[in-house]
Amino acid sequence: MTYPNWLTQRSHLSGSRMALSFHDQQWTFSEVNELALEYAGKLASFGINTDSRVAILAKSTPDFVFIMYGCLHAGCEMVMLNERLAPAELAYQIEDSAADFVLVDDVLQEKIEEHVPVLFSKIKAAAPSDWVPASEWKKDRTISIMYTSGTTGHPKGVRQTAENHFSSAVSSALNIGIAPEDVWLCSVPLFHISGFSILMRSLIYGMGVRLYEKFDAERSVEEICNGTVTHVSVVSVTLERILRTIEERGATASPKFKAVLAGGGPVPVAYIRRAEELQIPVLQTYGMTETSSQTTTLQPADAERKIGSSGKPLFLYQVKIEGAENAGEAGEILIHGPQVTPGYIGRFSEREVQADGWLHTGDIGYLDEEGFLFVVDRRSDLIVSGGENVYPAEIEKVLLAHPAVREAGVCGAPDEKWGEVPVAFVVLNKPAETEELLAYCKQQIASYKTPKQLKLVESLPRNASNKLLRRELKTWL
Amino acid sequence: MTYPNWLTQRSHLSGSRMALSFHDQQWTFSEVNELALEYAGKLASFGINTDSRVAILAKSTPDFVFIMYGCLHAGCEMVMLNERLAPAELAYQIEDSAADFVLVDDVLQEKIEEHVPVLFSKIKAAAPSDWVPASEWKKDRTISIMYTSGTTGHPKGVRQTAENHFSSAVSSALNIGIAPEDVWLCSVPLFHISGFSILMRSLIYGMGVRLYEKFDAERSVEEICNGTVTHVSVVSVTLERILRTIEERGATASPKFKAVLAGGGPVPVAYIRRAEELQIPVLQTYGMTETSSQTTTLQPADAERKIGSSGKPLFLYQVKIEGAENAGEAGEILIHGPQVTPGYIGRFSEREVQADGWLHTGDIGYLDEEGFLFVVDRRSDLIVSGGENVYPAEIEKVLLAHPAVREAGVCGAPDEKWGEVPVAFVVLNKPAETEELLAYCKQQIASYKTPKQLKLVESLPRNASNKLLRRELKTWL
Repeated sequence: MTYPNWLTQRSHLSGSRMALSFHDQQWTFSEVNELALEYAGKLASFGINTDSRVAILAKSTPDFVFIMYGCLHAGCEMVMLNERLAPAELAYQIEDSAADFVLVDDVLQEKIEEHVPVLFSKIKAAAPSDWVPASEWKKDRTISIMYTSGTTGHPKGVRQTAENHFSSAVSSALNIGIAPEDVWLCSVPLFHISGFSILMRSLIYGMGVRLYEKFDAERSVEEICNGTVTHVSVVSVTLERILRTIEERGATASPKFKAVLAGGGPVPVAYIRRAEELQIPVLQTYGMTETSSQTTTLQPADAERKIGSSGKPLFLYQVKIEGAENAGEAGEILIHGPQVTPGYIGRFSEREVQADGWLHTGDIGYLDEEGFLFVVDRRSDLIVSGGENVYPAEIEKVLLAHPAVREAGVCGAPDEKWGEVPVAFVVLNKPAETEELLAYCKQQIASYKTPKQLKLVESLPRNASNKLLRRELKTWL
Repeated sequence: MTYPNWLTQRSHLSGSRMALSFHDQQWTFSEVNELALEYAGKLASFGINTDSRVAILAKSTPDFVFIMYGCLHAGCEMVMLNERLAPAELAYQIEDSAADFVLVDDVLQEKIEEHVPVLFSKIKAAAPSDWVPASEWKKDRTISIMYTSGTTGHPKGVRQTAENHFSSAVSSALNIGIAPEDVWLCSVPLFHISGFSILMRSLIYGMGVRLYEKFDAERSVEEICNGTVTHVSVVSVTLERILRTIEERGATASPKFKAVLAGGGPVPVAYIRRAEELQIPVLQTYGMTETSSQTTTLQPADAERKIGSSGKPLFLYQVKIEGAENAGEAGEILIHGPQVTPGYIGRFSEREVQADGWLHTGDIGYLDEEGFLFVVDRRSDLIVSGGENVYPAEIEKVLLAHPAVREAGVCGAPDEKWGEVPVAFVVLNKPAETEELLAYCKQQIASYKTPKQLKLVESLPRNASNKLLRRELKTWL
C-alpha cells in the first residue's frame, strides 16, 4: 500500500515542466526536486527524519514550498501553523502536537515565544547531511497536520495522510478535468488545506503553481485575462474583488482560463450572477480540514438552477444526511470516502473522528431530490470570515479568562467585505471598559478572531439546561 | 477499502452526459445505468449474483456493453472470451475458469460446443428478479478475467480487480489529461484489455465511448476529422490504415481531437513520422493483460527523439530491469504498482504472478539514461499479429498433437499488414501434406494463430539441453 515518491516520480516523468513560479522566477519539477533533496539533506543535519514531527510557520514564499518539499522527502510529519495566529495560539499547537522542531520563516520569528525556533536562514546555511530519499511512500503516512477548532474551543490537530491528499487530488481531476498545461494561481494560505491541496495537486498532476504571497486583485485579474493561469482558488471576499476589477476594466477572461474554485464558506448568489455575466465559471465547493479539501462541488452548469447548493460529491466520496429518509429533510451532514482523516493527534488523539466509517461534520444540511447538497447551518455556530473559520467557543474561552468577565457569548454578524465577523456579548462581574476587553482579546488570539464589536449586557440567552443559545444572540444584533 | 458503485455514482454525478454511442443511437449515463440495473435483474433471474463467475462471448455491440454493466451491478466475475478463438480454445477457458454461466451473443452460439450457453436473446426476454445493487464495491473485487498464454502454451486466466482498473484509469488521466467532453472511439475488442479499459475509463471519468463493432478506417477518419471523438485506440495495422486514409483524402484532424493510443506491440517508426506530418499525436504504450492496460506510454513530444521507446511509466507505476545496474543494460522487465493483477485463476491459481511485489513480465528491455523504456524482445518469443498476441508454444502444442508430427517450431515472420504472422517448421514421423496440417490447425485454434506458412524440415535448431531455439528459426525464414 504505497505510492512512488511523488517528488521523485514527478521529476522523472515531467522534469522539464514548470512546477512553481513566483514574481519573475520559475522552477521546473526537476529543479524543485533538486532543491527539495538539498533541503532534506539540510534538515537531516538537524536530526529531522522519518521519526520527526516538525511545526512550520512561514509566509507563502518559494522557500516555504521548498522546505515543505524537503520535509516530504525527509519523511517527517508537518504541523502547518497559521501565521495569523497569536503567539499563545501557536504555542498551544506546538505543544499539543509535541513537535520535535519548529521551523520558522525569519520574518515571523517574533510569533514564537515559548519554543526555540529553527529559522529558515539557519536551515539554508546548513551543510546537508548524507541522506537517501525513500523510493516509496506509505499510503497511510501522515503528510500534514492542520489545527481546527470546534465546540470545545480547543483546536484539534487533524492528520492528513498521503492517501487523503491523493484521493482528493484524483477526485477533483475526475470532476473538473486536468491537462498537462494547467497552472493554478495560489494566493490562499499554504498552511490551510485550500493552499496546501494546490501543492499536492501540483505534484500529483504535474501542474504548475503560480504563487502569490498575498492576494492581489489587479495581478490575479491580469493572469486570468492573459491566460497565464487556468485555475484560481478564492474565498467569497477575494472572488468579489476579482469580479469588481474585471468589471471596472471591462476585461474578459482568457479562453485558456478554466475555473475559479470558491471555498471557505458560502458564496453570495449575487457574485455567482456577476461571474456568469463575465463568463467566468465558478465552482462552489464544500469541504473541510478533516476531508483534505473539496467534498462536494457545484458545477457552473448547475449554478443558476441550484443556487445556494454546494453541489454533488466528488467521484470517490459519498454524502448522506443523518436520520433523513426523504429528499429535503435536514440533518447532520455525514461524509464517507478515502479523503477523510484517520483522526486527530495530541490531546484529542483518542477521539474517534468517524462512526461506522462516516465523518460526522457537525454541519446541518439536506440533499434535494437530485442529490444536490445544501448546507443550512455550519457546525458549532461556525463563523466564516474572509475564508477563515472562527469558532465562537474559542473567543468566549479567551473572554472568560479575563477577571472582569462573568459570561461571554459570541456570534457572527453579517459583513459586506468579510461575509461575517465575530461579535461578542459580555456580562461583567466587575466594571471594565470594552476597549480594555478587546485589547485583551487581541493579545491572545489572531486579529481576525477578535470581536469587531463587544456589547455589555445583563444576561445571555440560555436554554433550560443553561446552554448558551448563540443563534438567539444573532437576533440581538 | 471500497469504491462507490461506479455505475450508480456516475449516473448520479453526470447522468445527462453521453456515455455510449453506436451508429445513430446514443445513451446517457443515466440511461446506461437504467439498462444495467434492468439487466442485473434479468441476470438475477438466472441465479447470477455476487457468488457467480460468468463467461461472456459477444460481438462489440451496445448489448454486450449493457450486459457487462449488468454483471458489474450483479457483482459477478466476468471471463472475457475472445470471439476469434476456435471452439476448442473457448471450451478450455470455460472449463478452466469453472464458469457458472456462459453468456453468448446469439450470432456466436455455434462457437460454443461443449457447454450450454445462455443466449443474449434469452437474457433480454427474461423477467427481472428482485434485486438490490451494492452501494459500494470492494477494491479487491475481481471485475474481469482475461486469458493470456505464455511459455507453456496453456492460456492462464488473469484476474483484474476494481483497483487494477481504477489505478489504470487514474494513471492514464494523470499522464494525458482528461476533460468532461472527451469521447473515446473504441473499435478494439471489448474482450481485450485495450477495449475493456475504455469502458472502465468511461465509468470512472464520465467519458463518452463511440463504439464500433469492427474497425472502419473511413468512418474513424471522419470522426477524427470532424471532432466527434477526442481519442482512439489502435494497433499498428489500424493506425496505418487511418494514416493512409487521411493522406489520401488530404484531410486534417479536428483541433478537438487529442490523441491516438497505440498498443499491442511496437509501432513502426515510419508510421510515427507520417502521423507527425499529419500533426496527429500518437501515444505509444507498453502494457499487458496482467497490468490492466498501459504501463508505460511515450508522449508525442518525445516520439522523435526516443524512437523505438515505449516511454516512461505512468505516475503510480514503477519499472525496473532485473539485474541491470546501469542505464542501457538489458534484462527482464519488472513492473510494480496497483494495476498489477493479484494472480491467476483455474489451473494456474497457485502460480505466483509477482515476486517481492514485482511482476516479472518475461519481456526483455532496457532503460536509457533518462529512464525511457525500450522493449528489445517480447516474452516467450511472443508474436504480435495485428494487435493479437500469438504464443508459439500454443501453436506448437496443436501441431504436435497431430499423429504425423514429430517436432514443431513456430516463430514470427515480418508482415507488412499485420506486423508479424506465425510460420511453422515441422519434422514429420510419417508422410503428410502441409495443407492437411494447416487445415488441422484451423480446426483447433483461431485463424489469426494458424501458421501462414508451414515448412517441412529435417530437424529443428536446439540448444545443448535440447531446448528449441525459436530465434534461430527466424534466420531460416
